[in-house]
Amino acid sequence: MTDTPSPAKGGAPLRDPAHLHALVVRIFTRLGSSAADAATLADMLIWSHLTGRDGHGVVRVPWYAQMARSGELDPKGQLTVERELPATLLLDANRAAGPIAMVAATDRAVARARTQGGCFAMVRRTTHTGAIGYYALRAAEAGLAALVICSGKPIMAYHGAKVASLPTGPIAIAVPGGPSGPLLLDMATSIASFGRLRQLAARDAEIPEGWALDKDGQPTTRARDGVIPLPLGGPKGSGLALMFEALTGMLSGAPVLVPTLADPDGPGRGSSALIMVMDPAAFGAPEAFADEVEALRAAIKALPRQDGVEDILLPGERSKALMATRLREGVPVPDALMADLAALAG
Amino acid sequence: MTDTPSPAKGGAPLRDPAHLHALVVRIFTRLGSSAADAATLADMLIWSHLTGRDGHGVVRVPWYAQMARSGELDPKGQLTVERELPATLLLDANRAAGPIAMVAATDRAVARARTQGGCFAMVRRTTHTGAIGYYALRAAEAGLAALVICSGKPIMAYHGAKVASLPTGPIAIAVPGGPSGPLLLDMATSIASFGRLRQLAARDAEIPEGWALDKDGQPTTRARDGVIPLPLGGPKGSGLALMFEALTGMLSGAPVLVPTLADPDGPGRGSSALIMVMDPAAFGAPEAFADEVEALRAAIKALPRQDGVEDILLPGERSKALMATRLREGVPVPDALMADLAALAG
Repeated sequence: MTDTPSPAKGGAPLRDPAHLHALVVRIFTRLGSSAADAATLADMLIWSHLTGRDGHGVVRVPWYAQMARSGELDPKGQLTVERELPATLLLDANRAAGPIAMVAATDRAVARARTQGGCFAMVRRTTHTGAIGYYALRAAEAGLAALVICSGKPIMAYHGAKVASLPTGPIAIAVPGGPSGPLLLDMATSIASFGRLRQLAARDAEIPEGWALDKDGQPTTRARDGVIPLPLGGPKGSGLALMFEALTGMLSGAPVLVPTLADPDGPGRGSSALIMVMDPAAFGAPEAFADEVEALRAAIKALPRQDGVEDILLPGERSKALMATRLREGVPVPDALMADLAALAG
Repeated sequence: MTDTPSPAKGGAPLRDPAHLHALVVRIFTRLGSSAADAATLADMLIWSHLTGRDGHGVVRVPWYAQMARSGELDPKGQLTVERELPATLLLDANRAAGPIAMVAATDRAVARARTQGGCFAMVRRTTHTGAIGYYALRAAEAGLAALVICSGKPIMAYHGAKVASLPTGPIAIAVPGGPSGPLLLDMATSIASFGRLRQLAARDAEIPEGWALDKDGQPTTRARDGVIPLPLGGPKGSGLALMFEALTGMLSGAPVLVPTLADPDGPGRGSSALIMVMDPAAFGAPEAFADEVEALRAAIKALPRQDGVEDILLPGERSKALMATRLREGVPVPDALMADLAALAG
C-alpha cells in the first residue's frame, strides 16, 4: 500500500496503517516520548482501527497532544510500583498515556502471574486507557487468561437516572487458544456505545427505544438527540459499571465517579484499571486448555441456528475478519483528522 | 414466629426461616453430613429465600438428596487443595454439595488474600453452586472485594442459536462498605432467569419479544412456551457466559459445555467456580475505601430521576429490603415442597 488514501465506500478515505503508525510515532516522539513508548502507543491505536474500534484510534491523538500540553498527560511518564504483595501490584502511571502505562502494566502482570500463578495488577493515575481488549489479548497471546476493567468519566445514565452518571464500564476477557488464536470478548456495559450513537447520528438514523436519552434526560429514538447512552439490561449494565468503578477507581485510591458527579467541570481525574491475569498452569489442565478452547469454538459454530441467522459468531470473530480486510484495504480516517495529525507531526 | 405457615398474598404459604433451616440441617445430617456442614448448606439456602432468590432455596433440597443417593453428590465430601501457588488455589470439592464446598473455598480464598494481597481460588467437581452472590457477600463482609463466576449446564441460547447452548452464566461482585454494609451485584447473563420465566409461566403471562425461545427454537411472547432464555444484549450476554465457562470449567480441567453439547443425556458433569478475592490493603486507600463506598451510594441515590422513576436503587438494595420483610413475615414455600422436605427429614 502507498500512503495515498484509497477511495472509501461511503465513509472516510482509507489510509495505510503503516503510514498512520509512523505518523503517531513521530507526533509522540516530538512531544517527548521515547521511540519505544511512541511505538507502543501507535501499536494500540492502529490495532483499534484494524479491528473496527475506530473511536479508540488516531481520533484520540489530538486530544492526547492537548492533554500533554496542559500537563494532564506526561509523554515521558513511566510506570512505578507503589506497593507489591505476592498476588498484587499497585502501579502508578504517573500520568503516562493510557496505552503506554497499560502495556507496561500488562507485561508486569503477566511476568508476575508466571511465577505466582496469577496477579491482580491495579494501575492508577493513567489517562484514557483506550481499547482495553488490546491488553487482555496481549496477556492471552502470552499464554495467560485475563480480565481487564477500568474506571472512566460518567457518560451513561445509571438505571433510572436522567443524567450521565456512569462510564460505559467496559470489560475485556481473553483466553489463549490453539491454532485459531485467543478468544477475546471486549464489551461496553451500555446497549450502544457512545461512538456507535455518534456514527448513527451522523446519518440522522432512528434508534430503538431504550438505547439513549436526550440532553434533558428524556427518552429519544433519534440518534442525533441520543447523547446519554442507557445501560445494557437496566440494573445489570448499570450495576456492572458501578462495581467496576468500585474495583478500579475506588480500590486504587483514585475515585472518578463521586468527585466528577459533585463537580462535573472540575479537573480531569485520570483513570484507573484492574488487570487480572491467571496462568493456566496453576489450575486444572494447562496442556489441554488450548485444545479445549478450539473444541468450544467448533461446538459453538456448529450449533443449530435460529431462522434467518446465517452464521454464529464467536467473541472477537468479526474484528478478526475486519483486520484481514483493513490490513489489505486500509483504515478509514477523515481528511480533517489527517490534516490535524500532519500539523502535530510538524 | 411459629412454624405454622402464615397466609400468603397470592403465593405459597409463608414459613418460619428458622424452622426451614432446622429442617434442612436434619435432612443433611441424616444423609451423612456433619452438623456444621449441614448448617453451612442451610445458611445459604435460607439466605436465598430471605433475599428473594427462591429458586436457590429449599426447592433444591430434594434434588440434592437425589444426587446424594445416586452418588453424584457426597454429603461427607470435603474440599482438598490440589495445587497452590502464592496467588492461586486449585481446590477439588470431591463432590461435596455446592454451598459446603463454596463456603470452604471462599474462606480459604479470604485467608489467602489477607497474606498475599489477593487470591484466585478455583473450585472444581462441586455440584450446583447455588446463589453465588452469597459467597461474594461473605468475602465482602470479611472486608475484601470479590468477584465470583461459575460454569453450569446449558439452558440459555447462544446468540443466534436455536437450542440451549450456554448456562445463564452468573457473575457476583461485592465490595465492603461502611455502616450501610457491602455493595453486592449478583446477576445472570440472560435477560430473564429461568426461574423468572417459570414464575411468569405459572400465571400464563405475556413476555416481551427477545426474552425466550420455545422448545423448537422459535421466538415466543408467551411465558409458558418460553423454555430457552435469551442472552442479555445478544452477543454481550452470550459472550460473557461463554468466557465464564472458559475461565471456570475449562481452566479447572472440568469442562461442562462441550461434553454436554455433544452428549446432552450423559452423566452430570458437576460445576466449577472461580472466586477472585482482593484485599483493599494491597491497593490504594484501604482506610478510605468503606467511606468511599458510602459516598458512592449517596451520590447514586441523589441522582436526578427519569420521569416516573420513584427511587434509584443500588445493587442488592431490593434484596436487603426484602430480607427485613421476610425475616418478619416468613418465606414462601409451597405445601407440596414442605411435604417432600418433611419426608426427607424422616
